[in-house]
Amino acid sequence: MSDPAQTLEQLRQALGDDAVVTGTNISQRHYSDWTGHAPACPAALLLPRTTAHVASALRICNAARQPVVPQGGMTGLAGGAVPRASDIALSLERLRGIEELDPAAATVSVLAGTPLEDIQQAALNAGFVFPLDLGARGSCQIGGNIATNAGGNAVIRYGMTRDLVLGLEVVLADGRVLDLRNKMIKNNCGYDLKQCFIGSEGTLGVITRAVLKLAPQPGPTSTLLCALPDYASAVSLLRRIQRSVGTPQAYELMWQDFFRLGVSWLENPTAPMSLDYPLYVLLESAVPGEPLETLLEQAFADGEVLDAVLAGSQAQARGLWKIREATAEFPLRMTPLNFDVSLPIGLIGDFVERCRTRLEQHWPGNHSVYFGHIGDSNLHLTVDCTSLPQPAPILDIEELVYSAVGELGGSVSAEHGIGLLKREFLHHSVGPEALAVMHQLKDCLDPNGILNPGKIFV
Amino acid sequence: MSDPAQTLEQLRQALGDDAVVTGTNISQRHYSDWTGHAPACPAALLLPRTTAHVASALRICNAARQPVVPQGGMTGLAGGAVPRASDIALSLERLRGIEELDPAAATVSVLAGTPLEDIQQAALNAGFVFPLDLGARGSCQIGGNIATNAGGNAVIRYGMTRDLVLGLEVVLADGRVLDLRNKMIKNNCGYDLKQCFIGSEGTLGVITRAVLKLAPQPGPTSTLLCALPDYASAVSLLRRIQRSVGTPQAYELMWQDFFRLGVSWLENPTAPMSLDYPLYVLLESAVPGEPLETLLEQAFADGEVLDAVLAGSQAQARGLWKIREATAEFPLRMTPLNFDVSLPIGLIGDFVERCRTRLEQHWPGNHSVYFGHIGDSNLHLTVDCTSLPQPAPILDIEELVYSAVGELGGSVSAEHGIGLLKREFLHHSVGPEALAVMHQLKDCLDPNGILNPGKIFV
Ligand SMILES: Cc1cc2nc3c(=O)[nH]c(=O)nc-3n(C[C@H](O)[C@H](O)[C@H](O)COP(=O)(O)OP(=O)(O)OC[C@H]3O[C@@H](n4cnc5c(N)ncnc54)[C@H](O)[C@@H]3O)c2cc1C
Ligand SMILES: Cc1cc2nc3c(=O)[nH]c(=O)nc-3n(C[C@H](O)[C@H](O)[C@H](O)COP(=O)(O)OP(=O)(O)OC[C@H]3O[C@@H](n4cnc5c(N)ncnc54)[C@H](O)[C@@H]3O)c2cc1C
Repeated sequence: MSDPAQTLEQLRQALGDDAVVTGTNISQRHYSDWTGHAPACPAALLLPRTTAHVASALRICNAARQPVVPQGGMTGLAGGAVPRASDIALSLERLRGIEELDPAAATVSVLAGTPLEDIQQAALNAGFVFPLDLGARGSCQIGGNIATNAGGNAVIRYGMTRDLVLGLEVVLADGRVLDLRNKMIKNNCGYDLKQCFIGSEGTLGVITRAVLKLAPQPGPTSTLLCALPDYASAVSLLRRIQRSVGTPQAYELMWQDFFRLGVSWLENPTAPMSLDYPLYVLLESAVPGEPLETLLEQAFADGEVLDAVLAGSQAQARGLWKIREATAEFPLRMTPLNFDVSLPIGLIGDFVERCRTRLEQHWPGNHSVYFGHIGDSNLHLTVDCTSLPQPAPILDIEELVYSAVGELGGSVSAEHGIGLLKREFLHHSVGPEALAVMHQLKDCLDPNGILNPGKIFV
Repeated sequence: MSDPAQTLEQLRQALGDDAVVTGTNISQRHYSDWTGHAPACPAALLLPRTTAHVASALRICNAARQPVVPQGGMTGLAGGAVPRASDIALSLERLRGIEELDPAAATVSVLAGTPLEDIQQAALNAGFVFPLDLGARGSCQIGGNIATNAGGNAVIRYGMTRDLVLGLEVVLADGRVLDLRNKMIKNNCGYDLKQCFIGSEGTLGVITRAVLKLAPQPGPTSTLLCALPDYASAVSLLRRIQRSVGTPQAYELMWQDFFRLGVSWLENPTAPMSLDYPLYVLLESAVPGEPLETLLEQAFADGEVLDAVLAGSQAQARGLWKIREATAEFPLRMTPLNFDVSLPIGLIGDFVERCRTRLEQHWPGNHSVYFGHIGDSNLHLTVDCTSLPQPAPILDIEELVYSAVGELGGSVSAEHGIGLLKREFLHHSVGPEALAVMHQLKDCLDPNGILNPGKIFV
């Protein structure tokens, strides 16, 4: 490693003084991401304005073997953008803006630092939707969404971020600029290199531009809450809906304990139906009420659905969603230990029982709640640490949950990524051969290991 | 390179005598693919029965620096599976069969040598569809479909093969087996390595197993032929349909000359409407007639549609498709030079005019016809070589077409891949930096260059 002061001087000359911030001039929001994990003031914060600046910065840092941490909106939930004191943080925030919206191609071309919400708005203005959506929409950046292959609220219908990316511009660790922009759905011209960078959490290249797919605006939706006898019915009802009226916009399964909690936290805690059913699903469909009702009657007759409420108004629909959105209040009302895992859809029910039983064996009386976007194979489970012996045995619980995930062939990270926080658990889902090839790919694209070292891999 | 005889002996010991075929015992169907390009009898044909056999074979060949050409159903249209006399061909045909269909996860797990049609049938039997579909369905293999990232008939609705693959098992050039099987929609556990192998045309690894996504069976469809005033209307009609009744199952745009040709080749050549419209679109929608008719009335009122015929019966629908399927008769009725290119959707109309004008300038009186899956950004153009001076200036025409594609930011291969036949034209769509990184990736995963050498890259 060369002299850090000399590296900073080179960076100042290349990017301009205002683009190289140090010491207390670095805002604390660059110290850690949404998790607040291991905050540190980086050795410098770079604020490049152009792809060429990003390229110069990486060329200089690569020559100096200086580690660089790409930073987007800092809303990540895996510690992926957290710097160490010796790292240089490279923020994309000045590479912001919509460069082109092509209504014929149904694409939008953006700079990587553009907040997700700006892109959603631009799409709406042009009569489309950009279907990626998540709670952090106002502050996360599209570059961060792509680097984490974010999931979010619309995956069941539109897929992950990967499915919405048509093209990228990426700067490699050595400063080479890879122009992989593309507006075509079909394009089989050699290796599809952009795939390497999607979901690579800033360890293989810095994303500077993206070309994204837009979707037609969906019509109004119907919102429905159904009570179900068992997990198998949750799967068969989903498949029934898909066959007869198409894939729903949302299909959120709540286990009884989650549902009870959600209802009890309502401003006016009256349940829309009995609290005694084993499972509840909140579903949203772009199909109007009538065909849905016919379908429900059949599901009733088959014993797949035990009770149902169709929201008669926007307000009623909001009310139903409020129960599911209890998750937003977790940090206020408990000390949540959240898990974002995925499993083969048919095994999610078993997994929940297995987890609950083992947790009860180890820590009798602990409180855990479960809900899942099961159409996406995604389960969120939350353990309230206040219900555990203190200090809460966090690592033991993580090991219990992630090893159960591994036993059933599931993934320890459904959508948030590995970053710093799940590195130790990656082996439950990824075998040693695959891990070795990931390292090969890393060495291939970043031989000096300057891009986000310590992330994903231990 | 070691002694070829010794390599063959090692292969016989590892795989068994019956799995190593040489000389005239090698069936001629292993000499070339569907194109018949540069046929050659390979030095040997390997017929492994298991992944372990594939692994042994590659380990031996890698140690001996012996080139290996993976072969699927030999239906490729780019020469990707064509061996040279010094290559060893490795056919996946004995790795055949459905291993599991998981109705809860909506996945099917298969061996790579399974014919596409077998998978489609298994899906239907279980109440699903496997939506990948192409003319070669009876003989192509899923491994070949994945290795070429095949497109086909349902891309507008379901995407490319890439979008249907959840997991893979791959054997690397050095014989390491990568188990990347996965049933989850959401799985962000480090790099998504399977993406590297999809569309890599057998140059980065041999695919031995796949886990595929199934879709719900669509209901009955309506088939419609519309006449349009101009290309812009073809795009706006598509977007209108997507907004109001959802993405169609097919949207096949025929330029006037194509339509006239198609009609003239019908057994009973009566046109379903006037032959004088500039453009015709054949569209298929899962929505029943009524909402489609309302939509059409508005399109009429806006001047977007000039005439329309809704098929009143299956037979009538078949009749309309017959016109579009004139392509199947190209080889019988002309000497076709076919192009499979893609362009940003808004530019396809311009591209057709540009191409037609330039072809006419160079070879007055030549005959070219155009049709496109424009919702996928895909255009097929065919020049009839009998309408050209002889010998037909094939390379000049290819250069003319592909350079026009490059000028408009299009792709010289929409779905068939590069293989042997498009290597010289790749540069029109892929820049030198991206090409260099493709080479890096190749060197990373196959440092001795034994897997399908000479394919994709010159
Ligand atoms: C309230 C809330 C709700 C959320 N909901 C969801 C959800 O539903 N689904 C979901 O998947 N996630 C969710 N998240 C997590 C987070 O918002 C996403 O992971 C988001 O995609 C991160 O974007 P960011 O710009 O904030 O990235 P950051 O946190 O800044 O960075 C994330 C990772 O990407 C890398 N990175 C950032 N920008 C670039 C770039 N331009 N080039 C290369 N690497 C880069 C960083 O190095 C880091 O590894 C949520 C977070 C919050 C706070
Ligand atoms: C009538 C007809 C219609 C067609 N229609 C379409 C269409 O609509 N859309 C479309 O995209 N294509 C189409 N094709 C082209 C072709 O069918 C597809 O490209 C198909 O996917 C090739 O499959 P295959 O098993 O025959 O592969 P092959 O021709 O045997 O091989 C193709 C390439 O894949 C590699 N390969 C094969 N198997 C493996 C494996 N297991 N692991 C690693 N590499 C492997 C080979 O080395 C080669 O590079 C059509 C072809 C025909 C003859």
